[in-house]
Amino acid sequence: MTAVSPPCVILDAPQLGENIGAAARVMANFGLADLRLVRPRHGWPQERAWAAASGAHWPLNAARVFDRVEDAVADLQRVYAATARPRELRLPVLTPREAAAELAEAAGQGEATGLLFGGERAGLETADIALCQAVVTVPVDARFASLNLAQAVAVAAYEWRMTQAAAAPSKFRPGAPPADGAAMLGLYRHLERELEAAGFFHPPEKKPSMVQNLRSALGRAMLNDQEVRTFRGVVTALSRGRGRVLEKLARRADGEGEG
Amino acid sequence: MTAVSPPCVILDAPQLGENIGAAARVMANFGLADLRLVRPRHGWPQERAWAAASGAHWPLNAARVFDRVEDAVADLQRVYAATARPRELRLPVLTPREAAAELAEAAGQGEATGLLFGGERAGLETADIALCQAVVTVPVDARFASLNLAQAVAVAAYEWRMTQAAAAPSKFRPGAPPADGAAMLGLYRHLERELEAAGFFHPPEKKPSMVQNLRSALGRAMLNDQEVRTFRGVVTALSRGRGRVLEKLARRADGEGEG
Repeated sequence: MTAVSPPCVILDAPQLGENIGAAARVMANFGLADLRLVRPRHGWPQERAWAAASGAHWPLNAARVFDRVEDAVADLQRVYAATARPRELRLPVLTPREAAAELAEAAGQGEATGLLFGGERAGLETADIALCQAVVTVPVDARFASLNLAQAVAVAAYEWRMTQAAAAPSKFRPGAPPADGAAMLGLYRHLERELEAAGFFHPPEKKPSMVQNLRSALGRAMLNDQEVRTFRGVVTALSRGRGRVLEKLARRADGEGEG
Repeated sequence: MTAVSPPCVILDAPQLGENIGAAARVMANFGLADLRLVRPRHGWPQERAWAAASGAHWPLNAARVFDRVEDAVADLQRVYAATARPRELRLPVLTPREAAAELAEAAGQGEATGLLFGGERAGLETADIALCQAVVTVPVDARFASLNLAQAVAVAAYEWRMTQAAAAPSKFRPGAPPADGAAMLGLYRHLERELEAAGFFHPPEKKPSMVQNLRSALGRAMLNDQEVRTFRGVVTALSRGRGRVLEKLARRADGEGEG
């Protein structure tokens, strides 16, 4: 078994300190340690989390708090969103087992990976799921689908652990690893800025869903850093091309004006 | 999926009502319903169990209470004991996955099956484990082996559920299939035409490899027809935006020329 970095666990807007502590405990059970919290509802730190962790204090002690999901995933190259709800986004839907296999293979190649979980009531925002490369759906019984947050973490962490126990050699895949969340967000924003300038987002009320669809489609491509640069070059070329032609035309216009 | 009876869950001397409720909840999540309690420490029923079950009341309402493990398993043909501790007993030691596979096969042949869990602190008595046909060990990290009772039930119940999941969920949300090669080629050529016009492909001898890289990156996204249209819209917007500004500038240039 090689020293592979386990996925980090990102809890978006968790409500109960008990659930954060229970999640930390089961992370420790299955060898995970990197816990990230996005806007915990009752602030941080919370005493109840430590009480519920039954001694698994290190993920809590080292937990980092973020304002936005995009900040929490900025350094990650592959993030899968745990969500039961059908979404309009077109992302691969994986079982926890399939997800763990993919994350383990990616981690084996040095990728920084993560699992994103929504809050107890609200779940995840579509805009945040759109930052992920796949959706993980625990195969719950439709007659009682309400899975406790820490139980969802347990199943995902258990499946991760099983991949490490089995320790199959990772398949060789040549090439650079996927870009991290910050690089992808940079590409998304660059593209969206230019599209905005070009009047692409109409009617304006549709912009959020258009943005999400573009992001999730591009996210599925698992671009590496070089490819992110290439695509930013594409956006720049198309928009700067506009600039160049404009310049040329402007010069001609000047000439005509002078003539 | 045939109508197979899921294993019952036997909790031996559970201490906390919360854990009984959390176990009932996760049983319901994964399609289990038959809950049996052996000497619950704080008696039965316990209000806290219902509170913790978050609506999964039927396993609690139907729970039967026994004085001894041997009574609780009397009608079962195959019972596996969940325990982390090495025992002197010579019983097969199974992962939750292996156990679920065996229980599913047995249940498929009409056997009544069960999973036996020990209390939060004390675990299971060797004499009770000896009533079982195998031991199930959750593969926890040796550095933090203390698994919450309901989490142990969760992992076992999840693995049962996985054996019953008739078909693996489809890789993508139901919806449109990926676009065909012709549609993708249309997108590629549209993009490349505009990039050519914008002077993106330089030096020219590198154009073939640049084109291949763009195509393979976009191809990985497995766009459907709607998304292909969206991306063609993106290319059009960026380049037609150019056109619009050009037109405006051209009109101004005309005006200046006339002036």
